[in-house]
Amino acid sequence: MQDGKVRELPGVRKRALGLLRVALVVGALAAGSTLAPHAAATGMVYPSEAGPLRVTEVARGLESPWALAFLPDGRLLVTERPGRMRIVDTDGRVSEPVAGVPEVHARGQGGLLDVVLGPDFARDRVVVFSYAEPTTRGARTAVARARLDADGLRLEDVRRIFAQDEDPSGNHHWGSRLVFGRDGRLFVTLGDRFHHRERAQALDSHLGKVLRIEPDGSVPADNPLAGRADARAEIWSWGHRNVQGAALHPLTGELWTHEHGPQGGDEVNRTLAGRNYGWPEITHGREYVTGRKIGAGSERADVAAPVLQWTPSIAPSGMAFYTGDAFPQWQGNVFVGALKFQLLARLVLDGERVVREERLLEGLGRIRDVRQGPDGRLWLLDESGGRVLRIDPQ
Amino acid sequence: MQDGKVRELPGVRKRALGLLRVALVVGALAAGSTLAPHAAATGMVYPSEAGPLRVTEVARGLESPWALAFLPDGRLLVTERPGRMRIVDTDGRVSEPVAGVPEVHARGQGGLLDVVLGPDFARDRVVVFSYAEPTTRGARTAVARARLDADGLRLEDVRRIFAQDEDPSGNHHWGSRLVFGRDGRLFVTLGDRFHHRERAQALDSHLGKVLRIEPDGSVPADNPLAGRADARAEIWSWGHRNVQGAALHPLTGELWTHEHGPQGGDEVNRTLAGRNYGWPEITHGREYVTGRKIGAGSERADVAAPVLQWTPSIAPSGMAFYTGDAFPQWQGNVFVGALKFQLLARLVLDGERVVREERLLEGLGRIRDVRQGPDGRLWLLDESGGRVLRIDPQ
Ligand SMILES: [Ca+2]
Ligand SMILES: [Ca+2]
Repeated sequence: MQDGKVRELPGVRKRALGLLRVALVVGALAAGSTLAPHAAATGMVYPSEAGPLRVTEVARGLESPWALAFLPDGRLLVTERPGRMRIVDTDGRVSEPVAGVPEVHARGQGGLLDVVLGPDFARDRVVVFSYAEPTTRGARTAVARARLDADGLRLEDVRRIFAQDEDPSGNHHWGSRLVFGRDGRLFVTLGDRFHHRERAQALDSHLGKVLRIEPDGSVPADNPLAGRADARAEIWSWGHRNVQGAALHPLTGELWTHEHGPQGGDEVNRTLAGRNYGWPEITHGREYVTGRKIGAGSERADVAAPVLQWTPSIAPSGMAFYTGDAFPQWQGNVFVGALKFQLLARLVLDGERVVREERLLEGLGRIRDVRQGPDGRLWLLDESGGRVLRIDPQ
Repeated sequence: MQDGKVRELPGVRKRALGLLRVALVVGALAAGSTLAPHAAATGMVYPSEAGPLRVTEVARGLESPWALAFLPDGRLLVTERPGRMRIVDTDGRVSEPVAGVPEVHARGQGGLLDVVLGPDFARDRVVVFSYAEPTTRGARTAVARARLDADGLRLEDVRRIFAQDEDPSGNHHWGSRLVFGRDGRLFVTLGDRFHHRERAQALDSHLGKVLRIEPDGSVPADNPLAGRADARAEIWSWGHRNVQGAALHPLTGELWTHEHGPQGGDEVNRTLAGRNYGWPEITHGREYVTGRKIGAGSERADVAAPVLQWTPSIAPSGMAFYTGDAFPQWQGNVFVGALKFQLLARLVLDGERVVREERLLEGLGRIRDVRQGPDGRLWLLDESGGRVLRIDPQ
């Protein structure tokens, strides 16, 4: 009991959940049968406060999968960072590469990255995807739209709708997540390209920004910096380091993102129009190797404070607000994958504040993407294991 | 950042919300018109993290209102502790007393207490209510059912379906909330009658218990102690001090209750079949006057731990799980009224754990009952002010 109007409640037992973890090998392995190459092979059971979670391997054999999208027919569209897009059917079979994907700069963290369906996919079969595009000088993050043919074997009418204004060398911090807002405009998240972090504060640069564009790449007239001669009109918000998770809040429709910090200072942000998110001037992060503090502190009046920061860094990637029925007690929670820490973070919100975190599936793999399926389950990409995974209540 | 699997997130600013409170007198007062006796008269605006809350006085002039129930036609059925039931119509007009209410023992905390509609009210117009029933020796908590006539002017076919097995003197700790479970069985909460607290642990007594009975007062065969010769078959759970708030969890259908502690140790409990809730052996409470610790500690293996305890006591009364659309960010929260502390507590759940509390409407009055209306608003009874209040977003 405290005097204030708000209190955080103590007393959560930090159970050694790891000790309780059991891995049950079921299905084909237990039955001693031969594995089909991409079929569901194992079920792993992990503990959670909502009860045991069953992790089903829906597909395997993918190379560095980066993003997945659900097609209306139940199949999945998956990107592999080296530059391939594939279809995973409802039996877990993985297709040959979809034809028509542009050449990508597949080095370091670059390559073929996010993919989302257009808002009218059922009618026009438009998909939008992002990638590191090679240039003569280096490479840059680009976004293209295309029509996926009826069989899902080929991209047709591929059109690049956006390319970053700078194409430095270096192979880190490309972003890049794609999210359609409720108004049909497309948010694009762009990294600072690592060696160019000061450009995250420069309004005449695309580096370290979240953008908002029309589906054809043009600039919405109501963008916060539209009409300013000294700024890129596509900019929605700035001061970002490397945003690899983004999703719309299911109640407010606002864009939420998270981003990687350097040795600390990973952040979750409500990502509002015309706001500065601080990087590299205001951050909880520290330099690699030296451990020296970066910038001028962790708060400043003109900089939007994160709703959550992780120190040390978990290396977040992929983000989903959960609204399904499979886990009713998780409704309204945010899920964030983690690469370095190999876990799925479950964040409990109270309004627009994160009030609690549970860490799930620790050690399962580098979780690159997190999406809620049309079945109300959570679906993950295990980048290191090359797998599509589905989470069910046991 | 912590090593454990679960962390509570720090950094909530304890804003001095009280300083921001503004009371806007609007409506009739501002317009200088004459007040109709029970019509909505004022709108007060209170701050909250969800934005300003407007408190509308729907009706006034009630004497110690204890419970309210929503009739399908939009009117309210309200009890007054001195022994009257009244109808409040949609314009805030308060009816003459409903005829047919039994004589009640209206002393101390006793009198006419809770009222709920039967599960088939639309068809059979059955209401169920609880009250302190006078006996030759003292008084006891009783429950009756009756048919509310079409105009809401009269209770017909009034039948007592339950009376406590002990009728001591003393006028404190009667309980009593009524909640129909999803299976149509009725939960009845009973206090320890203050001077008889050790009876809360006695299974051959109704004091300090939550009961589960059929709508006709008979005992369900699957009650946890049914068939035991040494126990009251109506008992659902025991070791309660004075439960004056109870509601079903909207996802699990389980009964949640809260209860008054003595100078500390108010509790919120998942109230499960056959469980001991500890009073007076296991509690956070202390004796009045001496401040001496009560019982043998605050934890014991066979005693169900509360999901939340308040020390010092706020004196909770009334409870509702919020599932409405008026405050989407409150969906899944629990609301608890407070008498002594004169506030409405908003509790944020993560599954079945309370992870955060916000204190609303401080100083508004002694909140005796809290219900969600069919309009998705929260409705309150201000016992001290004799008012029915409705909470809206501003
Ligand atoms: Ca920041
Ligand atoms: Ca207890």
